[in-house]
Amino acid sequence: MNASETVRIACWQPEWVTGRAHHDEFLGRLEQVAAAAAGGGAGLLVTPEMSATGYHLGRARTAELAQPADGPLAEAVARIAARHRLAIVYGWPESDGDDVYNSVHLVGADGTVAARYRKTHLYSDVDRTVFAAGDDLVVQADVGGLTAGLIVCYDVEFPETVRAHALAGTELLIVPTALVRPWEFVARTLIPARAFESQLFIAYVNWHSSSPDGYCGLSTVIGPDGHPRAEVSGDLLFADAGRATLVAARLATPYLPDRRPELYGGAR
Amino acid sequence: MNASETVRIACWQPEWVTGRAHHDEFLGRLEQVAAAAAGGGAGLLVTPEMSATGYHLGRARTAELAQPADGPLAEAVARIAARHRLAIVYGWPESDGDDVYNSVHLVGADGTVAARYRKTHLYSDVDRTVFAAGDDLVVQADVGGLTAGLIVCYDVEFPETVRAHALAGTELLIVPTALVRPWEFVARTLIPARAFESQLFIAYVNWHSSSPDGYCGLSTVIGPDGHPRAEVSGDLLFADAGRATLVAARLATPYLPDRRPELYGGAR
Repeated sequence: MNASETVRIACWQPEWVTGRAHHDEFLGRLEQVAAAAAGGGAGLLVTPEMSATGYHLGRARTAELAQPADGPLAEAVARIAARHRLAIVYGWPESDGDDVYNSVHLVGADGTVAARYRKTHLYSDVDRTVFAAGDDLVVQADVGGLTAGLIVCYDVEFPETVRAHALAGTELLIVPTALVRPWEFVARTLIPARAFESQLFIAYVNWHSSSPDGYCGLSTVIGPDGHPRAEVSGDLLFADAGRATLVAARLATPYLPDRRPELYGGAR
Repeated sequence: MNASETVRIACWQPEWVTGRAHHDEFLGRLEQVAAAAAGGGAGLLVTPEMSATGYHLGRARTAELAQPADGPLAEAVARIAARHRLAIVYGWPESDGDDVYNSVHLVGADGTVAARYRKTHLYSDVDRTVFAAGDDLVVQADVGGLTAGLIVCYDVEFPETVRAHALAGTELLIVPTALVRPWEFVARTLIPARAFESQLFIAYVNWHSSSPDGYCGLSTVIGPDGHPRAEVSGDLLFADAGRATLVAARLATPYLPDRRPELYGGAR
């Protein structure tokens, strides 16, 4: 473990326009955004929940757009990652037999898939009428020397998910999301609390929309001290996640060793 | 269960002045504050961690001020509670054999002790050199028809403690605290997150001090929607905690039934 390991993260917060077929333009946009991210020195590009197709499309349309984890979408993203020497996180509806999952891939900078996560906490009928739930909460991969983990949107609202990651060694938790108004509280308060209480970095990356009940943006990277780390540059948000910051936060308040799981009963 | 149950809470945020013997004046001040709370319509008065004596006094001084749960301090507070028909939460160093605990009492409006809690998560050497740790996390009592629970300061920074209370039916979590600068993040961000994610009311009541590294005040009552409920009136902060608000928040986002504890491993 090297205390000087640092990963520069770029976050892409695309606009969602209802009725526009986002998936048709996704790969073209991703190519441009990956070039900008790599040009800004990023080693990792994070995009929102279901970034390849759009989210909340209904059961039929989602099933129509679904692809297996080794389908042509995955191959195309892998080529972009390898071309720009950039790890990329993207979301898509994953078909597997008769099931469709709300999945994210972490593609390494060499173009190979480093991790796949299937959303475990399905949100209301928006998810439940469309997706099967994943059953594997802690999925990790190395990103530039840090242990990165993947969860999706509603998952992060449960403190147990982030705690499970922290206890399993996750240092940078990547959370593609699709958060709508009026739930800005989640981005503004819950995400900083999660990072602080479980002492890791969180990259929370959302869509945005001008619609009054649409996606609220507010993408952010929060450090283990609970403070935002990100700065906007062009169309992207950049942030540095470094192990030295993790070490300092964990020394300042030892939440993980100070837990008393024997007292928590069903909440441990 | 009656959806219209409402408890009016008064919070007292006393000033801490280093070197002044707070315990000598505590009962006199409490008498005045209880009169103001009852006069403002409150059914419950909450005071900070170790409110009867002051906190962070060192091992020798704390042991000198320690009293058993049925000692003269408890009897005097009980008389004040009964006189004003007001439930009162106060903290004191509790002696029990050779041990001293960082304890809080919830005294009912009839002057009988309804609940006693001993801090379970000791904070650094400030607590560990002075106190034994309690081993009973979920202590509850009825306050005006709501199920109230008690934890202390550092306890609430662990999401597991509040979750355990929510799963056990706590509707109003009372948290006497002694939070110092520069940890304002706890009061401003972590407490609203706790109330929102576990869908209960939290009354978080601190000392204040003008010292740069002293107690930071920021006492608050947060609703299950994550928003502050309290208004200052005179020297007190008043807030109403009602079951209808709990029911609405739990319908809006069903965090408790949507948990998947089978996935959480050591973090469940």
